Amino acid sequence: MKVGFIGLGAMGSAMASNLVAAGHAVTVWNRSPAAAEPLASLGAKVVRTADRAVQGEAVLSMLANDAAVREVFLDGGLLDAMDPGTVHVNHATISLALAKELAEAHARRGLGYVAAPVFGRPDVAAAGRLNILAAGVPASVEKVRPLLQAMAAKVWPLGEAPERANVVKLAGNFMLAAAIESMAEASALARAHGVAAADFLEVMTATLFAAPAYQGYAKPIAERRYKPAGFALPLGYKDIGLAQAAAEAARVPMPFAGVLRDGLLEALAAGDEDVDWSVLAEVAARRAHLGD
Amino acid sequence: MKVGFIGLGAMGSAMASNLVAAGHAVTVWNRSPAAAEPLASLGAKVVRTADRAVQGEAVLSMLANDAAVREVFLDGGLLDAMDPGTVHVNHATISLALAKELAEAHARRGLGYVAAPVFGRPDVAAAGRLNILAAGVPASVEKVRPLLQAMAAKVWPLGEAPERANVVKLAGNFMLAAAIESMAEASALARAHGVAAADFLEVMTATLFAAPAYQGYAKPIAERRYKPAGFALPLGYKDIGLAQAAAEAARVPMPFAGVLRDGLLEALAAGDEDVDWSVLAEVAARRAHLGD
Amino acid sequence: MKVGFIGLGAMGSAMASNLVAAGHAVTVWNRSPAAAEPLASLGAKVVRTADRAVQGEAVLSMLANDAAVREVFLDGGLLDAMDPGTVHVNHATISLALAKELAEAHARRGLGYVAAPVFGRPDVAAAGRLNILAAGVPASVEKVRPLLQAMAAKVWPLGEAPERANVVKLAGNFMLAAAIESMAEASALARAHGVAAADFLEVMTATLFAAPAYQGYAKPIAERRYKPAGFALPLGYKDIGLAQAAAEAARVPMPFAGVLRDGLLEALAAGDEDVDWSVLAEVAARRAHLGD
Amino acid sequence: MKVGFIGLGAMGSAMASNLVAAGHAVTVWNRSPAAAEPLASLGAKVVRTADRAVQGEAVLSMLANDAAVREVFLDGGLLDAMDPGTVHVNHATISLALAKELAEAHARRGLGYVAAPVFGRPDVAAAGRLNILAAGVPASVEKVRPLLQAMAAKVWPLGEAPERANVVKLAGNFMLAAAIESMAEASALARAHGVAAADFLEVMTATLFAAPAYQGYAKPIAERRYKPAGFALPLGYKDIGLAQAAAEAARVPMPFAGVLRDGLLEALAAGDEDVDWSVLAEVAARRAHLGD
Repeated sequence: MKVGFIGLGAMGSAMASNLVAAGHAVTVWNRSPAAAEPLASLGAKVVRTADRAVQGEAVLSMLANDAAVREVFLDGGLLDAMDPGTVHVNHATISLALAKELAEAHARRGLGYVAAPVFGRPDVAAAGRLNILAAGVPASVEKVRPLLQAMAAKVWPLGEAPERANVVKLAGNFMLAAAIESMAEASALARAHGVAAADFLEVMTATLFAAPAYQGYAKPIAERRYKPAGFALPLGYKDIGLAQAAAEAARVPMPFAGVLRDGLLEALAAGDEDVDWSVLAEVAARRAHLGD
Repeated sequence: MKVGFIGLGAMGSAMASNLVAAGHAVTVWNRSPAAAEPLASLGAKVVRTADRAVQGEAVLSMLANDAAVREVFLDGGLLDAMDPGTVHVNHATISLALAKELAEAHARRGLGYVAAPVFGRPDVAAAGRLNILAAGVPASVEKVRPLLQAMAAKVWPLGEAPERANVVKLAGNFMLAAAIESMAEASALARAHGVAAADFLEVMTATLFAAPAYQGYAKPIAERRYKPAGFALPLGYKDIGLAQAAAEAARVPMPFAGVLRDGLLEALAAGDEDVDWSVLAEVAARRAHLGD
Repeated sequence: MKVGFIGLGAMGSAMASNLVAAGHAVTVWNRSPAAAEPLASLGAKVVRTADRAVQGEAVLSMLANDAAVREVFLDGGLLDAMDPGTVHVNHATISLALAKELAEAHARRGLGYVAAPVFGRPDVAAAGRLNILAAGVPASVEKVRPLLQAMAAKVWPLGEAPERANVVKLAGNFMLAAAIESMAEASALARAHGVAAADFLEVMTATLFAAPAYQGYAKPIAERRYKPAGFALPLGYKDIGLAQAAAEAARVPMPFAGVLRDGLLEALAAGDEDVDWSVLAEVAARRAHLGD
Repeated sequence: MKVGFIGLGAMGSAMASNLVAAGHAVTVWNRSPAAAEPLASLGAKVVRTADRAVQGEAVLSMLANDAAVREVFLDGGLLDAMDPGTVHVNHATISLALAKELAEAHARRGLGYVAAPVFGRPDVAAAGRLNILAAGVPASVEKVRPLLQAMAAKVWPLGEAPERANVVKLAGNFMLAAAIESMAEASALARAHGVAAADFLEVMTATLFAAPAYQGYAKPIAERRYKPAGFALPLGYKDIGLAQAAAEAARVPMPFAGVLRDGLLEALAAGDEDVDWSVLAEVAARRAHLGD
């Protein structure tokens, strides 16, 4: 299929490379052109302006946040450059409000829109093993299914309203943060009673919590090494904010989200910008005045 | 080995039956004698008074809480009925304060003491697949290791001070409660935006949270069926209280524990006594005024 | 002095009437003209378009929120209709971000800008007994001081940067909400042990908490009557959100603010729109399943 | 009236001195005799054993906590040394559980029992200006009313069940702690935006929060001086624990209490033992990484 891909950060590059590998004709665009070079060497066509990347049957995008999506697709007029019938697959983790606004803007122009946020870090994306949440008009989802399958371990259909996929993504990221905080507090308790965090977490992640979410974050907590960041603290803070905004819109009290907000804010106040969000464990340890 | 077993609730009975099956000579006692009958039919010797169950090389006990352990072993004078050198293996989930008091009381009398709380529900115990946390003087732990292995998928050594095993158990149960609450809040958020809890939890427990703790509790939450209780609400509340007491003793702030305390208290205030503690999901739904 | 007044809700009308009474030549404008009639009868000049209300030496405004302020003054081009040297006194409770944006927009056009949020409800405003927080360039503040004094029990100078007055207002409203929540939880505790909320609150507000903030909100809580609203629930929720946004900008964890957000959200979820924000007491009572 | 007074700390000494000044024949006892000397010089009779202090018509006691009350009155057998008809007035801040146990123990022996916890610090007690909460059998309360009035600005009758006075005291202390925490968080927010805590708190405590509770604690927060302690941190932590225990008994969720528990615990973890509990302001400032 002739497809465009917009947004070539670590995630986007890995995802686009799997599309190329699956034999699709992929045209890529990124704000800073350097990021596109590796994909060119794999066989993707690199273009200088975004409008030239939206001429295929489908356009996939993996941008950083609401502001980037809004700037490129809405303010930048990119939707007007697409032919009717083109399907836009938006992989970004965005607010429900923007999700709804985008769905309407696409529909108004006769464009397809599929919300397709993903679970998985860059290494998982590179292996083509993402879990992709997909919501949109059935015909649109069906059209892009081969593309999604080229990048995914599994595609999870979530119905017609695009924001359904986004709320699942936000609720899932909230659960990740909660898992981290629960390890953080529990490890502080264990340490304060003489049990090393590594010993405690080894038991937990080999038994009740033998799941990727826990095993992945237990490692930096046990080793107290938060760089390089698997998922950067400011992004984590942003996502909890998106979950809280979604909760506000539907009037859902979420006390754990409030605790997470404060913990992440405390980590940011400590100057920890360029670290993994599992640095929540250091916040918990500082509050208990556990020494190094 | 000649062993005694005290406390034949659902857990204790399942554990004792595995000792019998492994060929040990097991003498059992329970406050209400009826619970001992099935074990008699398996080949255990049933006695009428607790002191007659503590005459072997080791005594294992699985009692409900601090009060029961204190009553049977300390107030009841059972320790004085044991021969020096006997090792007492205490499987109960108890406070760190009682754990230390018991360790001293045993040492004073020349008795061995091993703290050995377990992870796993009755069905896991029946299958001999518990995870057993074990802490105590090495010689004592070594002596009872064959007994523990007859009941366990794995025995996790946690050092010499018995309360180390207890704090790991309490921290682990806290993490379970936190996992439930995070599913509760996230599911309320999903439901409020039109995604069924079952659909949301299916994605989560098949991907990032593909672990026993999540899969086990996702089921009652998705089905909104909290009876029969896998782990009863009042016991869960008690265990969070024990974790908070351990946190207080070592001065460890645990904001998630505070949220859990209030959520469980709210469930109890609603009159939910005889239900699984995953009923926290109903608390979250009520707060958001989600209809049935 | 020749002054304009924009925004004639309950607060603005009461404030403008005191300016008239003090002998100032007041021109008023309100989006819906009916609200201006009572002021006309007092001697104010009523105009049909906002630009005609900004021709004096000073313009005071009391609008509902960020959106209204932005629409009237920034998007509506009203700043361009003012003569250089005119001082705009903004009494609204707005975000720190908008406060800074407004200060810059005024400075760029040679206009004065004084942030002057107030403490006090409509009856206090009518009595000319408001506490007015004032921050801005000293010359601007001095120029409008007679106007402020005509409406105030006391004017509190808070320095040059306008957002300083706004942060004090937001922090103060946060403290009000915290006072309500503390009465709500404490009253629930008292009621649950057989002491009527009215009896409990009578003791408190006559002794340790003999302050307007407590006495004013103890009344609806004791009587369980939340209509008419002294300060409406949705406005209270909005203000806690502004405080949280200010906290986010400066990275200040505020756990009480998180609890308040959830409590107010729970009240909103219960359908309580048109009530006083002290309805937090009903949220606390419902959580404890206290009957009526 | 011939009365005994037990417990001569700062509060008890000040209270007993007012009884002497009012012309009552006061016999005093304190565990460490040195504390009784100033009272002897005022005219009180000092005795060496507690049983000799309980021979009057009434016995007042002001002991530190549950443990001290239990030791002196229950374990020490002091109740058996009193003549039937003697009324014991217990001024201590104790748990509801102990309050009920004491009421029953007194009734069984034909002794009167009045729970009479107080609001006010030592200087207020010395001035005879305490607010005294009084609950007990009416005849007992009437009998000791002249004594209470000699020490009080006002006596607040709270009915017959003694624990009613205790729950009001605990709920009131919870409200004090909440007032401190709200000033702590609000001051951190103000400071982070450039407004000194002293400036912020001056506005608040002169306007909406012009009450003793706020004015008293605003001073140490503004000056960042927490010694000498007006109310010591460990005592404050204890009282929040008593409030939580009362909430647990009646199943009342109290999220603010949970936040306070963690804040006080964090202060204790920082090694702040001998300080006022308004040191919560330093906890809030540390979390926001505000410099000195």
